Amino acid sequence: MTTAASKVLTFTQTDAEFTEFFERAQEISDLGNLLGLLGWDQQVKMPPQANQVRGPQLATLQALLHERQTHPRIGELLNVLEPRVQGDGYSDADRGLVRLMRRNYDQNTKIPAALVKEVAVATAEAWGTWEQAKPANDFASFAPYLRKLVKLMRQVADHLGYQGSPYNALLDQYEPDMTLDTLNPILDRVRDATVDLLRRIQESGQKIDTSCLHGNFDPARQLDLCKALLQKMGYHFDAGRMDQSSHPFTGGGGSPFDVRLTVRVDPTYFPAALMAAAHEGGHGLYEQGSDPALARTILAGGASMGLHESESRLWENAIGRSLPFWKHHIGLLRDAFPETFSRYGVEALVPALNEVKPSLIRVEADEVTYNLHIIIRFELEQGLINGDIDVDDLPSLWNQKYESYLGVTPPTDTQGVLQDIHWSGGSFGYFPTYTLGNLYAAQIYHTLHRAFPDYDQRLEAEGTGFILDWLREHMYASGQVYAPDEVARKVTGETLNPEYFVQYINAKFGALYGLSA
Amino acid sequence: MTTAASKVLTFTQTDAEFTEFFERAQEISDLGNLLGLLGWDQQVKMPPQANQVRGPQLATLQALLHERQTHPRIGELLNVLEPRVQGDGYSDADRGLVRLMRRNYDQNTKIPAALVKEVAVATAEAWGTWEQAKPANDFASFAPYLRKLVKLMRQVADHLGYQGSPYNALLDQYEPDMTLDTLNPILDRVRDATVDLLRRIQESGQKIDTSCLHGNFDPARQLDLCKALLQKMGYHFDAGRMDQSSHPFTGGGGSPFDVRLTVRVDPTYFPAALMAAAHEGGHGLYEQGSDPALARTILAGGASMGLHESESRLWENAIGRSLPFWKHHIGLLRDAFPETFSRYGVEALVPALNEVKPSLIRVEADEVTYNLHIIIRFELEQGLINGDIDVDDLPSLWNQKYESYLGVTPPTDTQGVLQDIHWSGGSFGYFPTYTLGNLYAAQIYHTLHRAFPDYDQRLEAEGTGFILDWLREHMYASGQVYAPDEVARKVTGETLNPEYFVQYINAKFGALYGLSA
Repeated sequence: MTTAASKVLTFTQTDAEFTEFFERAQEISDLGNLLGLLGWDQQVKMPPQANQVRGPQLATLQALLHERQTHPRIGELLNVLEPRVQGDGYSDADRGLVRLMRRNYDQNTKIPAALVKEVAVATAEAWGTWEQAKPANDFASFAPYLRKLVKLMRQVADHLGYQGSPYNALLDQYEPDMTLDTLNPILDRVRDATVDLLRRIQESGQKIDTSCLHGNFDPARQLDLCKALLQKMGYHFDAGRMDQSSHPFTGGGGSPFDVRLTVRVDPTYFPAALMAAAHEGGHGLYEQGSDPALARTILAGGASMGLHESESRLWENAIGRSLPFWKHHIGLLRDAFPETFSRYGVEALVPALNEVKPSLIRVEADEVTYNLHIIIRFELEQGLINGDIDVDDLPSLWNQKYESYLGVTPPTDTQGVLQDIHWSGGSFGYFPTYTLGNLYAAQIYHTLHRAFPDYDQRLEAEGTGFILDWLREHMYASGQVYAPDEVARKVTGETLNPEYFVQYINAKFGALYGLSA
Repeated sequence: MTTAASKVLTFTQTDAEFTEFFERAQEISDLGNLLGLLGWDQQVKMPPQANQVRGPQLATLQALLHERQTHPRIGELLNVLEPRVQGDGYSDADRGLVRLMRRNYDQNTKIPAALVKEVAVATAEAWGTWEQAKPANDFASFAPYLRKLVKLMRQVADHLGYQGSPYNALLDQYEPDMTLDTLNPILDRVRDATVDLLRRIQESGQKIDTSCLHGNFDPARQLDLCKALLQKMGYHFDAGRMDQSSHPFTGGGGSPFDVRLTVRVDPTYFPAALMAAAHEGGHGLYEQGSDPALARTILAGGASMGLHESESRLWENAIGRSLPFWKHHIGLLRDAFPETFSRYGVEALVPALNEVKPSLIRVEADEVTYNLHIIIRFELEQGLINGDIDVDDLPSLWNQKYESYLGVTPPTDTQGVLQDIHWSGGSFGYFPTYTLGNLYAAQIYHTLHRAFPDYDQRLEAEGTGFILDWLREHMYASGQVYAPDEVARKVTGETLNPEYFVQYINAKFGALYGLSA
């Protein structure tokens, strides 16, 4: 930490109201972090029968947290402190805490308790139905529950308030201050550029040999390899863990000191675990990078879902699938799987890790086609919330868009509109943050090259230490002290600009597939 | 579950005040269970740096729990319900809940918040000092902190109230309704009988060959062996886990569905892990045996510390170190360590597991000498609390008693008065529950033989299934519904009687060491 950064991240100690406010924020932070830890336990360690009591236990803790978050005293203190912290003698951290507490207080007090409960019941029912409907390829049974959720989400949006579309209110829950006015042209640009690049890749007739990625890879060795890679990336195992779970994620008991990630192992395809480690490692580095002063305040962690995803994508894709990265780290693979990597080198590995191949399933998508999966979901959920699309038309619209953007047709709804958990949980407005992550990642990647003109040579020679140092200082340390747009400006000099991503994929995949510029 | 048992364990659904009371108890139960889970995480999975935030997070949750436990509405409801639940239409579970809530409410409201805080600070300081003083053999540095704690514990006793000695108030926290009037003659009897038996064992000149217990035992195989044994004992891994920790314990997120235990592995001595598994397994079976109706009420789990310890001792010692048990299970050892157990059979194993050998360290003690370690601590802590013993005299009194009861002299305080964590944490009155556990175990063991005249033959032929079924039905299912004395009467037909233990050790170790009756 530089001295300057430390100073802006120090909380004021001399203001009685601020101190009271700070202590209330700490209590809220503690309860939120404990819920995070319980979520980790549930997915990683909890014995199956505990399911019978964990739900009500979580509900009890959530009710206590909600009681704390909506305490009228917080409203009073916010009214006193909002003008006050704008003046001299208050730090960026002070102002960030007031900003984020206001945001959370408003969101938590605007939605009536009865509606919160109705949504909780409806999502539990919808999720239960979806879990059955997906393997059974039975969209019809899920449709009424989804329709109910869409209706409830419109009510949530009405209570939260919005300008323009009700979708804006939902989007703002995941990506603060983002609106369709900003997002629509950005995603249109990404869609058109991606569809064009994909067409040119397919017309090139180039095929990439991915045989070095497939075979028999001992699961224990894969886990050791993941840990070795995370250590090289700078993930601190004394402030975190790596475990296995059916869906990889990053969580834990509170940043920056308790940040736990998971991977999923496929014994026949090592990138499933290894690139999940790089992806979750990116999330983990962001969380572990928060200044220690932000621990037990709600300001530790990532500034938005999109910015958080930018770090997983940056470390997994822009860094973790690059030639200089593997020139430096190929020894890890040789040590783990000598049978395979005595035969193959980086010239085989790196193209294989970057193969572009349109597919039906979002979570298996490559770097180019991934955003098309997202944009399809975004266009559909926007239509649902705005009332332009009826739930019953969803499967056919889904399939039409997959055909039009990706050139593939889902043979079943299991591999189509039923594949993702998000809508069954009422998470409308969440999907775009994945693509925002890709766009922010490209913009930050561009900034890294500006900051380090010898980026490729250093990465090949030294590994990623200089990248992590830079990101910690310019981005990670300040956690949620600044709003997303301000983070983007501080890190990259401008707000979100999709041109960096368009340049990035055109340059990277143009070279890989031998396309003319 | 028999139908009769199910009925007495059903809570009333028709009484508005009782329902409100029940819901408050559930909230208290949930928060307590979450604290249990966090304690498990801290000792088993938590990354070391998380220590920096876990303390305050726990304090936040404990404060919320305390707020709930001392809510004036609970006092009002208790006053209404205490007479009411004595009448018809209320179950044993209803009465048990009212009894236990009254007990907890009184304990939590009697001690002033300022004293609770003072004790928390003093124990944190004392524990920190003890942790340094123990390896440094420096009792003098620990003494002032211990003196402070003794003084505070007398204040705690004054607030809790007592008849006779203030020690009674502290003892009651761990073993409800137990007093020195009952306990002193019991422990005197155990001490005298044990000292006499130990003298006769030593005079016999018999030596037991323990070489089958020592060697090189692969840790991974030891863990598999522990899991196999637990499974045979009837521990449910779908409602529990087994992990490693530096001190074995049983905890988790709430009985009967989330009961997690740990073992500690010594690669040169397999009983360290295996007998810890049997011991913690006993605790675990008691917890998992609570009737499902008691989940999320504070009534799941063990009826007292002593009764809880009785089950760990019963399964570890009376069952787990017996000849018929190992005649049935020797195959587990042969599978795990064929090199050793192709040479040794049960005739070598069982005597080796039961060797009597006076030692300095409580946690390494055998079944005969263990209670002498406890009685020494009990006599000393009683004297400290009553004011008959000064802290400065503790090391020399400790050493005198070890010499007199066990015939060994601690060469250092590290191996003497500083060895246990308990006093540094303010746990005065806790030690006797270990011996109460041994006594209850012998009494229950006697009852099992009465219930099953062919006990030895069945155990050798079938394993422990019939024992667990009997214990579940007669003891485990009712959890904390009944007070300790009532549990003892229901299970064994009488309250605690030390004669069963005296008979048990005289018979068992008399035979082992060839003593005349």
